[in-house]
Amino acid sequence: MDLPGSLVRFFRPGGIAVFGSMMEGWFFGGAVVVKELQALGYGGRIYPIHPSASRVYGLKVYPDLLQVEGVVDMAVIATSYRAVPEILEACGKKGVSAAVVIADGFAEVGPEGIGRQDELVAVAKARGIRIIGPNTLGIYRPQEGISTVPYEKGYHLPPRGGLSIITQTGIYGPQAAALNEYRFGISTIIDLGNMCDIDEVDCLEYLGSDPDTTVIGMYIEHTRRPRKLMEIAAEVSSNKPVICLKGGRSSEAAHAMASHTGSIAGQDVLYDALFRQAGIIRIFEYEDLMLTSKVFLTQPLPRGNRLGIISLTGAMGIQCIDAAVENGLVLGRLTGSSMEKLHAVHHTLAGHPIDLGPATAANGIDFFAYYMKCFEVLMEDENIDCIYLNTYISSYLEAEGYAHVFRHMADNLRKPVVSWSYGPSSESVRRLGAFTESHGIPAYPSTRKAIEALGHLVRYAQRKRQAEDTRTRAMSA
Amino acid sequence: MDLPGSLVRFFRPGGIAVFGSMMEGWFFGGAVVVKELQALGYGGRIYPIHPSASRVYGLKVYPDLLQVEGVVDMAVIATSYRAVPEILEACGKKGVSAAVVIADGFAEVGPEGIGRQDELVAVAKARGIRIIGPNTLGIYRPQEGISTVPYEKGYHLPPRGGLSIITQTGIYGPQAAALNEYRFGISTIIDLGNMCDIDEVDCLEYLGSDPDTTVIGMYIEHTRRPRKLMEIAAEVSSNKPVICLKGGRSSEAAHAMASHTGSIAGQDVLYDALFRQAGIIRIFEYEDLMLTSKVFLTQPLPRGNRLGIISLTGAMGIQCIDAAVENGLVLGRLTGSSMEKLHAVHHTLAGHPIDLGPATAANGIDFFAYYMKCFEVLMEDENIDCIYLNTYISSYLEAEGYAHVFRHMADNLRKPVVSWSYGPSSESVRRLGAFTESHGIPAYPSTRKAIEALGHLVRYAQRKRQAEDTRTRAMSA
Repeated sequence: MDLPGSLVRFFRPGGIAVFGSMMEGWFFGGAVVVKELQALGYGGRIYPIHPSASRVYGLKVYPDLLQVEGVVDMAVIATSYRAVPEILEACGKKGVSAAVVIADGFAEVGPEGIGRQDELVAVAKARGIRIIGPNTLGIYRPQEGISTVPYEKGYHLPPRGGLSIITQTGIYGPQAAALNEYRFGISTIIDLGNMCDIDEVDCLEYLGSDPDTTVIGMYIEHTRRPRKLMEIAAEVSSNKPVICLKGGRSSEAAHAMASHTGSIAGQDVLYDALFRQAGIIRIFEYEDLMLTSKVFLTQPLPRGNRLGIISLTGAMGIQCIDAAVENGLVLGRLTGSSMEKLHAVHHTLAGHPIDLGPATAANGIDFFAYYMKCFEVLMEDENIDCIYLNTYISSYLEAEGYAHVFRHMADNLRKPVVSWSYGPSSESVRRLGAFTESHGIPAYPSTRKAIEALGHLVRYAQRKRQAEDTRTRAMSA
Repeated sequence: MDLPGSLVRFFRPGGIAVFGSMMEGWFFGGAVVVKELQALGYGGRIYPIHPSASRVYGLKVYPDLLQVEGVVDMAVIATSYRAVPEILEACGKKGVSAAVVIADGFAEVGPEGIGRQDELVAVAKARGIRIIGPNTLGIYRPQEGISTVPYEKGYHLPPRGGLSIITQTGIYGPQAAALNEYRFGISTIIDLGNMCDIDEVDCLEYLGSDPDTTVIGMYIEHTRRPRKLMEIAAEVSSNKPVICLKGGRSSEAAHAMASHTGSIAGQDVLYDALFRQAGIIRIFEYEDLMLTSKVFLTQPLPRGNRLGIISLTGAMGIQCIDAAVENGLVLGRLTGSSMEKLHAVHHTLAGHPIDLGPATAANGIDFFAYYMKCFEVLMEDENIDCIYLNTYISSYLEAEGYAHVFRHMADNLRKPVVSWSYGPSSESVRRLGAFTESHGIPAYPSTRKAIEALGHLVRYAQRKRQAEDTRTRAMSA
């Protein structure tokens, strides 16, 4: 685990050998990996290996690795666990020093599996092979043409972007999550599986210096190297946000994890302390990884925690304040000049939260012009650091109506903005959310989730400022 | 406020007069109310009233109320605030004793509005007229043919069912929420507006004895009658679940509310105590009203808090346990006999949470048959009181594949069941959720929300059992 840059072979392999079923059209197996590497335009050579198949998706299948003449940097092993030790031996002989072991049946299935995993590790060590897995999907790095995921997923490419995820579960993988619907872009997903060798610390260190990764999400249930994780995370999080969901907070869950991963998780309070010290942003449910990362990928860091609110009903303004207070934000006090500007737009607007409801109930007003003016007031007010937008869609207010407003926002994003939409049709609400996001403003499934994300952004910005202040003082002392 | 049954005229009016703009095709106004009453098949007579219009949607428009010859039980007033006092005077003369005042510009707009509202109340009192509003959408009771909502919403009827909502905001109204997508059915929505007369206590009392209402949801920001609310809620909640979102928990929000509703909210801790004593189920965000009510409308009450879990990945099983512990549930310990049955299905299934992942990675197994067997084991295990299901959909696992499983569940629902689905396409996930719900099992947008809802159901069942025990002991003493 001390070879510098030893993960490069996984993330930029020059040739890939794929072991497993080469049955075309089946939803799982080596053939899926081959097909996906081709579809993604992987630039190196692909060597399917199978004892009896002859061709797969137009490629020659080799009966064993040693018959391959070209250079192989990485092996993807999607076979039964029985075949793995022998394949690793072959890898050693061939000089393949990186293997993604998709095969399951190891530590996760109990005592006999633990024995198998020990054997696997022994072979890998003897042969100098680094392992991701076993019991893993491996690596999904679509913009680089790399995928070891052995399941069909039904879509091609997610948008290009800076989110990378390191996970001890497959449910952030492309076969489980609609990554192509994540509009702000995926860089790399690494499923660690049973983590017999390469762990979350290795990956965090690698992605910390990966120029294509700007935000790192993690799902972990346990770490073998808490001290090292803290050290690396502290370093990485001073440059890039690191967001982490820790599965197994309760002792009941820790007990259950012992069986499904073959390892024991520590007490949650220790993880909490570790996360705080390392500057890791802690989240509490599966969906929050995507939801929280969006605001970090798209919005500037705020200077403070003073929230500006544009709502379309008084009640949602109130609920937004409740959520703000729970997440460490405060309702900003608008300047007198802002109040005057709002009053000039419509007398019912001179308040905060800005409630567009009463004004828009008046006949014949230009809703979108009002909306734009309210936004401008908040963007210019020196007492406002971040902004929540509530938008509405219906048969008489269409998503496209916001086009001018959103374009203006996108061109003037000096403070972070988040949004929540509602309306009498969930399909239209989704459309408005997508339209909002196409202008670079993240849309959330609830006001609370929008404000939670903003709260994380505010605290991250505070920590960064504090760290800079400390550095500045240290230098001037 | 002491007339027994005085709300009947609002909920079963024999004739309705509608005041406001009679411009056909406009998105707001009296014409929308007329059109909707017609569309819903309202059984009584509709009398549009407007000084200059002559016909609207095929009906004669009367220049004023006193020219109407038939009986009018309720007036719907969607005019400017200026016209309201005069209309109420006319109502008094005509003997109309129920008015929904949609008009805004009253207490919610500040001092001058408060004066207007005082005048309105004085006229109503003098004339013996009960008021819902002002600044309201009024009543939406589609299966009874009644709607006073003055906005276009773009759909016809929500499914018939037992959820009624009493709200101090318009955002649960049919123009704001996709009520037609709520598969378990809407009975009545009452928007209280500024609550100058009829309040949440009146409505709770009425719906408490309404046979069409089986679950009551509330959104309140304040109550004028805390003692009475507690008394009525305690009575109603012993028969029907009462779920409440209280807006303005923080003092910041309470301050803002003072301006938007014209009244001051009390300290949150008092509301919390009131809710506990009255057996009101407290929720904390907008979306939770629909999400929580679903489990109450569809599932039997559990005997205890021991959760059974079927997951498709170990990690979601772990996260489900975390959510369970946070919501007062415990992971049930399966009986030895259950473990044997699971082991007989597949050796990897003999654990809890039941993780179908490893088994289904094996080639050629019948996933749905396995799923069904796991469900049967949990439904029969005496140590399990309630069940969480995780379901997956993809290009190779279709929603319809679950048909047999879900039909079997629907026929054997002796314990409450909730579900969360995932997959690589949000559209497919929605389809699977809809398919699940069409079999009577509520689907949730996250595991956490599913477990939260189950937690509410478990605590409600516990309170009910305790109350029954107390009654039984009192009778035998």
